[in-house]
Amino acid sequence: ADIQAGKKIAGTQCRTCHGLDGIAQIPVAPHLAGESEIYLRAQLEAFRSGKRQNEMMSVVAKDLSDEDIANVAAWYSAIRITAEMPD
Amino acid sequence: ADIQAGKKIAGTQCRTCHGLDGIAQIPVAPHLAGESEIYLRAQLEAFRSGKRQNEMMSVVAKDLSDEDIANVAAWYSAIRITAEMPD
Repeated sequence: ADIQAGKKIAGTQCRTCHGLDGIAQIPVAPHLAGESEIYLRAQLEAFRSGKRQNEMMSVVAKDLSDEDIANVAAWYSAIRITAEMPD
Repeated sequence: ADIQAGKKIAGTQCRTCHGLDGIAQIPVAPHLAGESEIYLRAQLEAFRSGKRQNEMMSVVAKDLSDEDIANVAAWYSAIRITAEMPD
């Protein structure tokens, strides 16, 4: 998959809600940073097929090609994340 | 919501796939670390009602009370995350 091509898609279609770095900008959207490619692809395919539904994502995913999905999933999964639990 | 009660639920029902710190242990599961309470609650309620379906989560969510959902969402959203984009 082509991470830079995925970054372009993220920069145009995803960043408003999910951020270019995958940290959600709005509370109804999930973070995508560091998610596995398997999970991201499965969700985008589910939104595209209608198996999973969301008023925003059903529209966004409709026109994504398999290649777009692979590339944008590669971009977000390439982001390194850390998690720190509260005491 | 009660973050410590949520930590207990996470430690028994969620950690195997999602990690206690919300970093997924298996590629088919998403990270939950730092996700907003609104998003986490909406997904757990959707799995419980059947609006969203997954072979694992439909079972796990079936017996969660509203209070359980609020508490476990509070735990995972309290985890601090950072994201670092590749160059």
